[in-house]
Amino acid sequence: MLNFTIGPVMSGERVCEIGAEQVPYFRTPEFSSVMLENERLVKRFAKAEESARAVFLTGSGTASMEAAVMNLFDENDRVLVVNGGSFGERFVQLCELHDIPHEVVALPFGTSLKAEHLAPYENAGFTGFLVNVGETSSGMHYDMELISSFCRRNRLWLVVDAISSFLADEFDMAAYGADVMIAGSQKALACPPGISLIVLSERAVQRVESRRCKCMYLDLKSALKNGERGQTPFTPAVGILLQIHARLLEIEAAGGVESEVSRTAALAEDFRSRIGHLPLEMVPESMSNAVTALHPLNASAYDLFTILKDEYGMWVCPNGGEMAHKVFRVGHIGALTKEDNTTLINALNDLHKRGILK
Amino acid sequence: MLNFTIGPVMSGERVCEIGAEQVPYFRTPEFSSVMLENERLVKRFAKAEESARAVFLTGSGTASMEAAVMNLFDENDRVLVVNGGSFGERFVQLCELHDIPHEVVALPFGTSLKAEHLAPYENAGFTGFLVNVGETSSGMHYDMELISSFCRRNRLWLVVDAISSFLADEFDMAAYGADVMIAGSQKALACPPGISLIVLSERAVQRVESRRCKCMYLDLKSALKNGERGQTPFTPAVGILLQIHARLLEIEAAGGVESEVSRTAALAEDFRSRIGHLPLEMVPESMSNAVTALHPLNASAYDLFTILKDEYGMWVCPNGGEMAHKVFRVGHIGALTKEDNTTLINALNDLHKRGILK
Repeated sequence: MLNFTIGPVMSGERVCEIGAEQVPYFRTPEFSSVMLENERLVKRFAKAEESARAVFLTGSGTASMEAAVMNLFDENDRVLVVNGGSFGERFVQLCELHDIPHEVVALPFGTSLKAEHLAPYENAGFTGFLVNVGETSSGMHYDMELISSFCRRNRLWLVVDAISSFLADEFDMAAYGADVMIAGSQKALACPPGISLIVLSERAVQRVESRRCKCMYLDLKSALKNGERGQTPFTPAVGILLQIHARLLEIEAAGGVESEVSRTAALAEDFRSRIGHLPLEMVPESMSNAVTALHPLNASAYDLFTILKDEYGMWVCPNGGEMAHKVFRVGHIGALTKEDNTTLINALNDLHKRGILK
Repeated sequence: MLNFTIGPVMSGERVCEIGAEQVPYFRTPEFSSVMLENERLVKRFAKAEESARAVFLTGSGTASMEAAVMNLFDENDRVLVVNGGSFGERFVQLCELHDIPHEVVALPFGTSLKAEHLAPYENAGFTGFLVNVGETSSGMHYDMELISSFCRRNRLWLVVDAISSFLADEFDMAAYGADVMIAGSQKALACPPGISLIVLSERAVQRVESRRCKCMYLDLKSALKNGERGQTPFTPAVGILLQIHARLLEIEAAGGVESEVSRTAALAEDFRSRIGHLPLEMVPESMSNAVTALHPLNASAYDLFTILKDEYGMWVCPNGGEMAHKVFRVGHIGALTKEDNTTLINALNDLHKRGILK
């Protein structure tokens, strides 16, 4: 199966090889040194300040989103949440669940965040800002310069879910003054799902350390403390952490984050430039390199997903909920090539010819 | 490296093969049917009632321990916790963190739970009971008949951490009237770490569904709801779930849980019967088949761990904290054989001859 979803994505050869190996025991100096290198490379690729920290949680991206919310904010905060899709909605639900006062910048699916959306919230007593820089459900990529300057002006704690965006879009944690950046193993890191990671600025580390988190598993204090010696509080997904290590070293050897972002941008551009003749509308106003969200003008998106899976041996990514029949997504992350794009476009052309993609 | 730790343990050939494969997209009927079969087989091997449910969390065993505590108990409960080692201590910490009134049956490391330990707590207004049937830190295996009858008499919710014990020791969830049983992917399931699982009795499911859990990631309501269709609320460790599937089918084909428990018991017995001449004391009064905890009479347990790792190419399992120099453990779970026992015993004999194990 050729996999164009937004995760799990296809892995490279070395990552697959490690998957076949026995998982080693991990309370050892050997594994600690792997973890310390993972932290160092993730910080470098996020362009975090030297004094930042990175921790790895065994869990989905949501585990890290919740950990960030629970460890940084409480009922004394006032948080602004950008909600332009199902992952923005998840941040809203997390604020509700944890009784964190919040207001929502609700954006129609696939539309950009603009200065006028933020204007009403200037100097309005907020303390934090939550945003999915790549809103995975719509493929939207928000303007980090705009968000960054709003947060600096208003002295907000800036939490950025970059789960789908990390390594696919340019990101500069230190330049944006972001306090938290979240990523996941099964996105552009192109490893199996099971690990999410959080990079924290120095001041975010200090804030976490001064607070009580009412969840042992998601307590970043113990993750930070254990991470100082390259360990985790609980048994982590050791195999996936070794795969992440190999992948980070590969990215480093191939020219670092800039090369990886360029490669992904070129793959996305190649795909987007070759589907203009098809009755597919691109959804977002500003696109992440990681994914192209498409609205078939006269066909069910979910039916297209099913036919591509069952008859063409490839997965595109269906949407859930009310978008299930309206939108499907094509990922550009993982071990994909322009030849793979051609294979997918040939299948779409065939569906068009058959009158299914009409 | 030959791996005698208690997790991650060595995996069989098929599990390793799956580790090398690309991880498939999972929001599909194909993956749902795998998950429904996983649930069915786990329930069968736990000897749960037909109306029980099993859910799979992406996380360590602690994630499931915390989920069980958070989803079943609150400040209106009164819980009795057996604490005979570091995992009993973890249950105590979870009760403290979540403000659950509790009392602790504190047992010296490696000692059995006896009727007289429970006698003071009869008819004393308790609502729940937390125990690690296999206390992984000491290799102790508690008497489930004793615990079961105490809980029935006192009408307690019985939560059993069987993380190291599941598939290694006899367990009959329905016969014990247990409400929750917790297990993990990296123990006798012999898959990579990253998944823990919770089996819930019918009445535990009802209790979970009637309560609010203040953690989205550990909310068993959404896990149960999504599980009805063979799915999970968040992206799970898909690869490990496929490995668990293969392993459950293998156990089923080889005669089911009884055969697996017998195989492990024989391996443990073989090891234990052949080390009587060495200056090693077996720690627990009643041993789990999963592990043998050993106290070297005149040597540092941690030094033995390090020398076995660096000079003999094998891992035994070190203990942490104050037991680090006093106790090391030898696991009998995972893809181990009697020949592997011989290799380890030869190494121990050699250490003895060298005057290191003295």
